[in-house]
Amino acid sequence: MTAHTVTAYDQELKALENAIARMGGLAEQQLRLVLSAVTEADPEKAIKVIAGDQVIDAVQREVEEMTVQLIARRQPVAVDLRVVLGALRIASDLERIGDLAKSTAKRLAQFDEKAWLSPMTRSLTAIGDLAALQLKTVLDAYSQRNLDQALLVWNRDEEIDRQYNALFRELLTYMMEDPRTITFSAHLLFCAKNIERIGDHCTNIAEIAAYIITGEPLVENRPRADIAPVPSEG
Amino acid sequence: MTAHTVTAYDQELKALENAIARMGGLAEQQLRLVLSAVTEADPEKAIKVIAGDQVIDAVQREVEEMTVQLIARRQPVAVDLRVVLGALRIASDLERIGDLAKSTAKRLAQFDEKAWLSPMTRSLTAIGDLAALQLKTVLDAYSQRNLDQALLVWNRDEEIDRQYNALFRELLTYMMEDPRTITFSAHLLFCAKNIERIGDHCTNIAEIAAYIITGEPLVENRPRADIAPVPSEG
Repeated sequence: MTAHTVTAYDQELKALENAIARMGGLAEQQLRLVLSAVTEADPEKAIKVIAGDQVIDAVQREVEEMTVQLIARRQPVAVDLRVVLGALRIASDLERIGDLAKSTAKRLAQFDEKAWLSPMTRSLTAIGDLAALQLKTVLDAYSQRNLDQALLVWNRDEEIDRQYNALFRELLTYMMEDPRTITFSAHLLFCAKNIERIGDHCTNIAEIAAYIITGEPLVENRPRADIAPVPSEG
Repeated sequence: MTAHTVTAYDQELKALENAIARMGGLAEQQLRLVLSAVTEADPEKAIKVIAGDQVIDAVQREVEEMTVQLIARRQPVAVDLRVVLGALRIASDLERIGDLAKSTAKRLAQFDEKAWLSPMTRSLTAIGDLAALQLKTVLDAYSQRNLDQALLVWNRDEEIDRQYNALFRELLTYMMEDPRTITFSAHLLFCAKNIERIGDHCTNIAEIAAYIITGEPLVENRPRADIAPVPSEG
């Protein structure tokens, strides 16, 4: 293999990482945009999020194409293969995060933006901000190969799950107190779940980043709190 | 390359497909089990589903390991690379289907099984049966390389989306009529969404199967009906 070939290969790997960074930036931007749509009761921003999702989808297709080309032409092994397959999986998580931001925007857009300013949405944007922080942190952890930051994200997901459970209960009380809020609250339940799932995708990316860095999977069965415990039999 | 090597390679590809078939069978079994748990008000079955999910996760890890080994050692190209990367993605969809069946079982298990027999769950099991049919059909389409069956699944997802929207509205009316049903109904909303998402994963698998068969992606932007249309601006 000539020095030229090695350089081209390195450049292709670098281009793949750049595409992931671009996709991550877009996903983070979409999430922050839908959150500010809510806090500012700005339907234009929600419309922007809905329209913007296709850009993320297009970058994902680019990443998939680059991955297939890289595997076919360069036949990567060991750490390079982990990087390439990791990029493929991170792209899938980022695409889902984009979908979840878009789904949140679509649900909100069904209601008058005055409703967005109700106290019912306040906990939603709080947990959304935490999810946006998780996303930013894990993208940095990935691009800088920072294991500590990846582990931080992995562990901090429990806080999102805890806040999600509290929000779930909060929304049920609004529904019980005033049946006229049921339809809006039901959609907010799903918006909350979307945010909680964005958090899960961030932990997935943290796991992939950690695997790329160490070559070992993270310990399984991280404590989870996203669904109330199942009653024992008997 | 000796005849012996080619045979070993073919066997490895075959083993990968077998692992997917096994995983698919397990996912289908889990989905059918949670549906019969509801119709028979049998909490033991729900517990079985919750416990059984780890088997699917284990097979997914096997598939991932086989894929990495295959790429590193055999350096597949063209159709073989499509098969290998397709298997990786299908395994990811099947793992999610298993998760969604387990999540449904966990949500139900929080309530007395007498509640499972309420009229509120009837539409849920109807849409669940349709999702189980989609899963069975798409697994057959994949293993038999049957493009028509893959397209059938891809197109039939609209019917799941339609039934999901009807069920969403139905559950809201139960909540409005009797606030005591709000907590149970809210969990049923998520169970319904789980089933709708299982349908989406089946269409993903249909797309991957079609891509393996034809080498071309399916046309994008299939009409979707899972979220009510967004009101136009102005």
